This record gives sequence, structure tokens and C-alpha cells, in this order.
Amino acid sequence: MKGVLIMTRKVAVIGMGHVGSTVAHYIVANGFADDLVLIDTNEKKVNADALDFEDAMANLLHHTNIYVNDYGQLKDTDVIVSALGNIKLQDNPDADRFAELPFTRDAVPKVAEKIKESCFNGKIVAITNPVDVITSIYQSVTGLPKNQVIGTGTLLDSARMKRAVASRLNVDPRSVEGYNLGEHGNSQFTAWSTVRVLEQPITELANKRGLDLDELDHEARMGGWKVFSGKKYTSYGVATAAVRLVNTILSDAHTVMPVSNFREEYDCYLSYPAVVGRNGIEEQVQLHLTDEELDKLQTSANFIKEKYQESLEANKKA
Amino acid sequence: MKGVLIMTRKVAVIGMGHVGSTVAHYIVANGFADDLVLIDTNEKKVNADALDFEDAMANLLHHTNIYVNDYGQLKDTDVIVSALGNIKLQDNPDADRFAELPFTRDAVPKVAEKIKESCFNGKIVAITNPVDVITSIYQSVTGLPKNQVIGTGTLLDSARMKRAVASRLNVDPRSVEGYNLGEHGNSQFTAWSTVRVLEQPITELANKRGLDLDELDHEARMGGWKVFSGKKYTSYGVATAAVRLVNTILSDAHTVMPVSNFREEYDCYLSYPAVVGRNGIEEQVQLHLTDEELDKLQTSANFIKEKYQESLEANKKA
Amino acid sequence: MKGVLIMTRKVAVIGMGHVGSTVAHYIVANGFADDLVLIDTNEKKVNADALDFEDAMANLLHHTNIYVNDYGQLKDTDVIVSALGNIKLQDNPDADRFAELPFTRDAVPKVAEKIKESCFNGKIVAITNPVDVITSIYQSVTGLPKNQVIGTGTLLDSARMKRAVASRLNVDPRSVEGYNLGEHGNSQFTAWSTVRVLEQPITELANKRGLDLDELDHEARMGGWKVFSGKKYTSYGVATAAVRLVNTILSDAHTVMPVSNFREEYDCYLSYPAVVGRNGIEEQVQLHLTDEELDKLQTSANFIKEKYQESLEANKKA
Amino acid sequence: MKGVLIMTRKVAVIGMGHVGSTVAHYIVANGFADDLVLIDTNEKKVNADALDFEDAMANLLHHTNIYVNDYGQLKDTDVIVSALGNIKLQDNPDADRFAELPFTRDAVPKVAEKIKESCFNGKIVAITNPVDVITSIYQSVTGLPKNQVIGTGTLLDSARMKRAVASRLNVDPRSVEGYNLGEHGNSQFTAWSTVRVLEQPITELANKRGLDLDELDHEARMGGWKVFSGKKYTSYGVATAAVRLVNTILSDAHTVMPVSNFREEYDCYLSYPAVVGRNGIEEQVQLHLTDEELDKLQTSANFIKEKYQESLEANKKA
Repeated sequence: MKGVLIMTRKVAVIGMGHVGSTVAHYIVANGFADDLVLIDTNEKKVNADALDFEDAMANLLHHTNIYVNDYGQLKDTDVIVSALGNIKLQDNPDADRFAELPFTRDAVPKVAEKIKESCFNGKIVAITNPVDVITSIYQSVTGLPKNQVIGTGTLLDSARMKRAVASRLNVDPRSVEGYNLGEHGNSQFTAWSTVRVLEQPITELANKRGLDLDELDHEARMGGWKVFSGKKYTSYGVATAAVRLVNTILSDAHTVMPVSNFREEYDCYLSYPAVVGRNGIEEQVQLHLTDEELDKLQTSANFIKEKYQESLEANKKA
Repeated sequence: MKGVLIMTRKVAVIGMGHVGSTVAHYIVANGFADDLVLIDTNEKKVNADALDFEDAMANLLHHTNIYVNDYGQLKDTDVIVSALGNIKLQDNPDADRFAELPFTRDAVPKVAEKIKESCFNGKIVAITNPVDVITSIYQSVTGLPKNQVIGTGTLLDSARMKRAVASRLNVDPRSVEGYNLGEHGNSQFTAWSTVRVLEQPITELANKRGLDLDELDHEARMGGWKVFSGKKYTSYGVATAAVRLVNTILSDAHTVMPVSNFREEYDCYLSYPAVVGRNGIEEQVQLHLTDEELDKLQTSANFIKEKYQESLEANKKA
Repeated sequence: MKGVLIMTRKVAVIGMGHVGSTVAHYIVANGFADDLVLIDTNEKKVNADALDFEDAMANLLHHTNIYVNDYGQLKDTDVIVSALGNIKLQDNPDADRFAELPFTRDAVPKVAEKIKESCFNGKIVAITNPVDVITSIYQSVTGLPKNQVIGTGTLLDSARMKRAVASRLNVDPRSVEGYNLGEHGNSQFTAWSTVRVLEQPITELANKRGLDLDELDHEARMGGWKVFSGKKYTSYGVATAAVRLVNTILSDAHTVMPVSNFREEYDCYLSYPAVVGRNGIEEQVQLHLTDEELDKLQTSANFIKEKYQESLEANKKA
Repeated sequence: MKGVLIMTRKVAVIGMGHVGSTVAHYIVANGFADDLVLIDTNEKKVNADALDFEDAMANLLHHTNIYVNDYGQLKDTDVIVSALGNIKLQDNPDADRFAELPFTRDAVPKVAEKIKESCFNGKIVAITNPVDVITSIYQSVTGLPKNQVIGTGTLLDSARMKRAVASRLNVDPRSVEGYNLGEHGNSQFTAWSTVRVLEQPITELANKRGLDLDELDHEARMGGWKVFSGKKYTSYGVATAAVRLVNTILSDAHTVMPVSNFREEYDCYLSYPAVVGRNGIEEQVQLHLTDEELDKLQTSANFIKEKYQESLEANKKA
């Protein structure tokens, strides 16, 4: 007897705070998934969101099936988005992504265990901060191949850099090429040697047009801070990055994107461009960075590894 | 000399709380507008949202131009969505839409004056509660023709009814026809005589399948309450209704929808199906309600008129 | 070892004439599928279309993987759209859907055999004319359960009726409810007793507004003929109906639609509303037709059965 | 009295052959325009297409208003797409874009005159071949500023180059940067010095991976030829390029794209990257080409100018 396989697009969002619910809304509003699994420890909140989506359905263009707090649904899920975080901790005055670590390094392994138990064998897209450490924890606890676990990483920081550059030059941010690299955190940096706009390296253009790259760097970073300080969280930028990553996986697009992936030479997850497709990381790209950039990247990698070790030890003690 | 007209789709959202920002996100995520004007008295919040959208742009499929707190942009705006409210008041334990009235009846005329001063001559879609009273205030202060000012009204309540019916019968809510009428508030009701599903009046189907319409009514209402109680606000359902209304206007679709429109025979704004197109309300539909439904509608209309009078008097005193 | 399942949305189009290629374009242009299998006996044509889609990819919003003439890909395909036909025969002056029968009754069983050999166990959406007979052939040759094989049937004729009614009353065709029933061919008819617009039965509205239903019926039918006579084929209307059916299956929407499905009481495939979801036909709806409509439906059913018998016999002889 | 401006997105397609009708279908299927004007000298064909779209409407997600053969509608149209051509001539065995010139150089000035008479002051997107000459004719006859008249040019050839490169390296064509330049015709060429993939110049990558750029060039060109020879026309690639250009204008995205625009230094329309927004060409980009590429571009420019002169003289005589 042939079994009827339920195929189509199935996505799960774990953690329905500001970011997770924005991810879910983006997916439902565009019909990007057929089945959407929503998971949160706050039962009332996740049920409220699910019902709110169902109250939208009659007026939406697309249909989406919503499942709530059912880890069993992960078995045949294509992509899990981890957006869990501690909402109270997110509202810390310093906007320090590591402020959440004590909470998330505790919560993530438990979630990862449940994912493992569900026999999930798809791809994990981690947004939860500090994202490089968390992505690593997901990979090691679930035992999934490294290419199947990816963090959104500097896909957001790169978008912020593009926004800052594009806004100064009055061009579409999609017409700015280039990458922010390393930790999705304070040690990340724009690899200006990779940035091109108006068909030339920005380093050349900067001279001609009197652009100050440090100022642009400052603007890109301050942008994130302004968003955070203005609403006590950030949501659209990072949720859009995550959903783009999900869609790239689902449609097997093989797009080159700066995401948090495991690089052997740095022995950790950090953001570096890779080809993303249905297998997750399909191929790793090799940049030709300047010595200064290589130093910054090493520093960033060291920081991530150190924090990862700390989180391992903290969890051992616990 | 010929003037270069900037045409394309221009939408403004006034009030960037939970609902307004969800409306804005839905529009940006789908590329439904080319120009999007965001207005809020909380400068930090609205700038944070705008920047967050711009941080998403490089990863979005469509481009949208964002303007912040510039009433001058309303001059050639096609549709204004009024989503303003008092976030603190929204979180009241009774989920009473009139709890916001003291705040909104004060704030709305000021906003409406600014809209008028901008020479805006498009359509207004009001979400702000109590929506029927507020829609009326917008119309009277701006002096726009009544057909150009519309409230989302029971487009949401009807979607909730459809969700409850559809869920019970395991059909698409889009395959349930029918309307909730009257005030978008506690006096609204499902006009069961208008509801059809599986190609028959639900009143007939209810007998055959042992459906209890009062129970369904309760479920539809409780849904809204559960969403509110679970997250202290509702957003996706009402934002989706509002954006559907905006798109129906922009594309001149002439769709029949239950929205808050001015009905001469009730001498007030209340929800009743109408044909919606580029002129706003293009034609009013005439239902054949039962006597009981007509009574309920009259009661609902009386309640709206009373509250409208109260708000006029309160504003006169102020 | 856990197997990596390739899930996501996989659709095949068999027959890349005017209709099939329009179906494929609609899917690619909207990103409705992740994997798209194109099959045609005209190798040059189908390869040309595939390459043309790939030449579009860099400028498209979504990514789609295209496979050409590979029946092996059907194994894990979710939905197959059968759009095969004889282009030369399609251009017959009488626009008679049965003119294609000698060609399609010959070609379809061969295709159906190949589908069967591929171990396909998804849903078939048949557009190929005469669609009710062809849908039946697909079902019997593949041996798939009847609910998994569906014809687009009068989903198109109903849309034409809605267009004619909507145009006369200046409303959105989506705001017209009702069905054309029976054979997707000359014996089909509008079941006016099912048609509702502006919240009343059209039979009542017709009196009030002086609408002549026979004239509307004529307009709806003539529309199809005008399209055919103006360009020697029809494409957008029927392709849109087919893709809507595909999406309804993929997203498990449980929408009520008039499609060709097997009705026991008529012992044949004919168009009659049904609830469509991921299992194909999820539930059959029961209309309350007038005696005259029941007669017409019986006549239509008899005609389909007769043609189906003829096609069986013709194939036996061959 | 304030005038009610009908804003929203209004697009016209002139010439409803294979390409024009694919452009129209793409727009209708995605709801990219609110008003769509279709114009063709073949009254029966254009009316058939319009009716076919209207027969699709009830099953489509978005509403679009269709106008047929009404030049008066151009007055407030945002973007006109010129897709006219001689279908019979398109089917010439040599796939020579200049084979159409005797027809189009005659037809285009007449169409351009009618556009001028309509008081149109939007942007023209020309697809009609030979596109660089035709774009120039549109500009000179309508008297519109040069930045408001644009040809799709090598936006298609660049997409073909990206397809060829992407396919060889198994990456998303959207992850290949670079341009084909010059005439959209046989004298066009890939400016390999501008092409970057996997974060390096393709000229470097070619060495490492043994890519033969001449072979890739051949593949890109042969692709177009294969499409043409397989179906006697090309449609999806060029229509997608045109619609992307239209959407970039409507949403004022300021995207850098290789399109046919007037370059002073070559004194003609030819394809070269430019920033495209609501004013059409917003800014011209300056590439740093090799001497060999500069020579090729000059040759291509000379060819275009020569053909343009010929067409002027031919029209004078006529």
C-alpha cells in the first residue's frame, strides 16, 4: 500500500514573543506556509495569537493551518524557526544580546531535546540571542548535521548596513552588495572590502563622494539601537531576515547569504556568506578579506567560542 | 506644461500601537502600497517602527517608501487608516470598547482637523474604537462625503462568526457567507438569517446537524475575548480586515462587505453590507432581516447614536 | 538513519499548450510551487518554455525548480495538472470540446499509465477536454481513489456566469455566489436557484431590476465563445481556475467549489460543488435544486456517461 | 472644490502578442496594477484576452480593472509597456530582431503620436524590437524627457547570462552580479569585468574552476535562441524583465538595473546600468570597463545609431 504523504510547506515557530509572532504574521499574511506550528510556554499568549490568525482567515488571501503547542507536529516540519527569548530580559536598557544568555542557555537545550524527540529531520533557523552560541547549542543537542542548523546572524546587520549605505546614496538597499561578518552582537563588523554599490567598491566611492565609512558603520549600528530604544524590542528587520532564510530553504534557491554557519577554520558558528538551499548550508563561500578584517573576524570568533564554553559550563553546573 | 503626477498607491496609518503597526507590517510585507505614511504622537515609537521596516527592506520582496509624522503627505494619500488608541486604556480588564472613548473622542477630532488641513480628499478607514462613533466624528470634522469615510466595523465580527462556523463544519471560513451587523461592540449580533454554508441557510443546517446557533454565537464572541485576554490586545484579525478594506478601495473591486457606513434609515454609522470600491461606499445593500434581527439592529443603532451624542456633548464642554 | 524528506510544494503540468503553459507561468510568477515538473511530447516546446522560465528567474520574486519531461519526478509530486490537448484540434471552428476526444481519449490513458508507474499518490487536477470523461479515465487507469482525481469542470463556467452577473450589476464577481453544474460542455447550465448577489436570490433581484436570466446565461456562454473565436483558444480563465484548485488542495483550505467530482447518484464525474482540501474531495455538498435543474443535470449526466462509454469502446477497438 | 484624484497603479500594455499578453497576465495574476489598459490593432484578439482575464477574476486573488483599446485612458496612466510587434515577422527563422524593424519603425511612430495626443506624462517601458532604436523613436515622437522613456534592453540578456553562470555553479541566478551591455541584439556582450559570483570576480573564479567564459557566453546566447526555435517566440523571460522594470518605477525603488537608457557619451539609447525609480532613470551609473569592453560597447552603439538613422530616413521617404 502506498502511503499518502502530506507534503507542502510546514514551518514551526518556537517562541511567540515580538519576533516570533512577527515571523508568524509575515508567513500567514503571504501564504508562505501551508501548515504553521506555533509553540510557546505562555499557553494563553500562543493560543491568543493562533485564534487572532484564525479571526483573520476569512479576510486573508491564503489559507494556513495553525497548530498550537504540539511538538508531535515537528516530525514532518520542514523548517523550525527558534524565536524564543525572555521578553522581560529583552527589555534591558543596554540592548546587550548576551543579557539573555542565562535565560536562553537554559531554555534552548530543553526545547532542542523536545525537537530531537519529535524525530525532526528538517532545518533549524535560529533567531534566539546570542544567536551564534544558541545555534551551536541547537546543533549539538539535536545532533542534526551542522548544515541543517543555521542562525540568522548578520543577515540583519548586513541589511542595516545596506539601509545606511542606500539611504546615503539614494539607491535601493537591494542594490548594495556586501556583508557584515562575525558574531551577531557587538563584535560584528562591516567587511567594507566586500561592499559594492553603484558598480564600484564602496572604498573607492567613499573617496569620490566624501563618504565616511566609520560614520556609516555608526549609523547602521545606531539604527538597531534606535529601534530597540524606541520600542523596547526589534521585530520587522529580524523577522524578515528569518523568513527570507526560511523561504530560501523551502524553495531550494541556492542564494548566497550571510548567515551563522559552522566554519571549520574558526571552529564555531559565526556569520559568513554561504549558499543556502534545501539542505540548509549547501556550500561555504570564501571571501578575500583584508588583514584587518581577518583580525576582527578572529576576535569575533574567539568571543563566540568563549561564550559558548561558558554556557556549556554553566549548564553542566546546573 | 504638463505636471508630473505621482500616482501609485499611497496609504497612511495614524496610530502605531499594536493594530496600526500590524496594519503597516501587513502592507509592507506584501507590497500593497508604494508610499506608506506612519503617524503617531509617540515620536520614538513611530520612528523605531519606520527604521525597523527599513532594516527589513533589503530582505523584502517589495519596496515601500516610508514617511514619518508628516501630515503634509496626506494631501495626495489614497486611503488613511485610523488606528489610534490609548495603549494603556486598551489593556483594560473588561475589554470594553467604550473604555477608550474618553481618550479617542478627544484625540480623534484633533487628528481629523489635521487631515482636513492637509486637503486630503481620499478615503478614511477607521479602526479606532468605539468605531461607529469614531467614524462619524471623522466624517463630521473632515467634512468629507459620507461615502468616503468607512469603519471596519463588523467585518471583523463577521470573520469571527465565519471562523466559529467553519471550524465546527470543517470548511474554509471563506466558504461561509453572512454578516454580523450593528455596532462593532457588545450590541452587535450575527444575523443568522443571512448566514449560508454548505449551500444552505445555516438555520436549516443547524437542525440537521444539531448545531446550536447560540453556542456558535458565544464561541465567536468568546474568541475575541480569548485573544484579548491572552495577549491584552487583538491585532491580526482587525488589521487584516482593515487592509482588505483598503485594498478593495484601491483596486476598485466593488466587493460586498459588512462595514460601518452611514445608513439614512438609522441616521448613524453602523455595520451593514455595502459595495466597496474606489469611491468608498459605492452602493448600499438591502438585507431581508427577520423582525427579531431588525429589533436588534435598531437597538444597536440607538446605542451608537446615544454614545455619539454623549461624545459631542463631552467635547463641547471640553 | 532518518531519511531527509524533501517536502515543500511540488506540482506537475502535463501538456504545455496554451493552457498548460499559462498554468505554469501563473505558478512560477507567484511562487506557488517550489518544484515544477513540465511534461510534453513536444520536446522542443517544453524545453523552450522551461528555459524561458529560467531566463526569467533572475528578475522574478520567487525561486522555482523546473524539471522537464521526467516522469520519475511524479513519485513525490503533490498535484498533477493535466492540460494536454491537441493544439491543432483545439483550433476547430465549432469550439466543441468533444472534437478533442478522439485525440485525448487516446493520449490520456497512456499518460495515466505513466503516472501510475511513477507510484504517484497525490491528486490529479484535469483540465483536458472533454473534462468529465477525461477525469474519469484518469481515475480508472491510475486506480487512484475517486476523491484524489478532480476536473476543473464548471469552476470556469461558474466564473463566467459570475463575470456576466457582476458586470451587469457593477459588483465584484467574487461577491456573486452560485454554480454552473453538470458537464463542462454544451449541456452545462447555470443553476439560477443557487445564485445570490447583493444579498438576495438572483431570481428575486432579476424581477426588481429587470434582469433577463436567459440573456445573462447567453452572455456567460458567449463570453467563452468570444474568447475562443478571438484568439483560437482560451487560457487565463481556465488556468486560473486550475491553479486555484491546486492551491486549495496544497493549503488544505476546505473551500467549497464547483468541480468535476464523482457523484454516486449520477454514477459519473460531473461538476457539482464539493469541499476541496488536501485529500482532494473532502466532502460532497448537497444542493436543493429545482425540478427543472434536476432534469438538466440528469440530461448532462446522461450525456457524459454516454460519451464515456463511447470512449471506452473506441479504446477497446484500438 | 477639491477634485477626487483617482490614484493607485495604472499600467497600459500596447501590443497584445505573445509578449504583451504575458506581461498582462503577470500583472493580473499578481495584482501589480489596479487599472490595466490593453491596446492592440487586432480588436478580436485584445477583446478575447480582456474577456479571458475577466473570466479569471472570480478565481483570482486580486482585482484589476481592464480597459480595452481606449487611448484616452493613457492620460493618467503611470507606465505604458510597448510590446507591439508583427507576430508573423516574429516567427522568422533567423531570430533577427531587426527583421521586425520595417514593421515596427512604421507602427511605433503612429502609436507614439497617439500617446502624445493623450497627454500622457508617465514613463514608457519599451520591449518592442529592435528595442534601442524603438525606445529612441518613442522618446523623440512623444517629446517626453529622455529619463521617462526606457527600453528593457539587456535586462533580459543579463538574466540569461546569470542563468548560464548560476546553472554551472549551482547558485541562485539572483546571486550572480553583472551586466550585459549595448544593443539588445547581436552586438550585445557580457561585460565579464562586471560579473561577480560567490564573492569574487568571475574572471578569477573561471581560472580556479576551469570555467570557459566564451562557452558561458555561448550558452547564454544559445538559450535565447533555443527558446525562440522551440516555440517560435520568447515570452516569460522578457515579460518578467519588463514587469520588474514597471514595478521598480511604480514603487520608486531606485534599483540599479541594466536597461536601455540614453547615454550622452554614446549619443544613443543603449543598455547600461542605471538607477531606476519613479522618475524613470534617476541616475546613470559609471562602470569601469576594460578597453576591450569599451570597444565592444562603441561598436554596439555605432550599430544602433546607424539603424536609427536608417529608420529615420525610411520614415521620411514613406
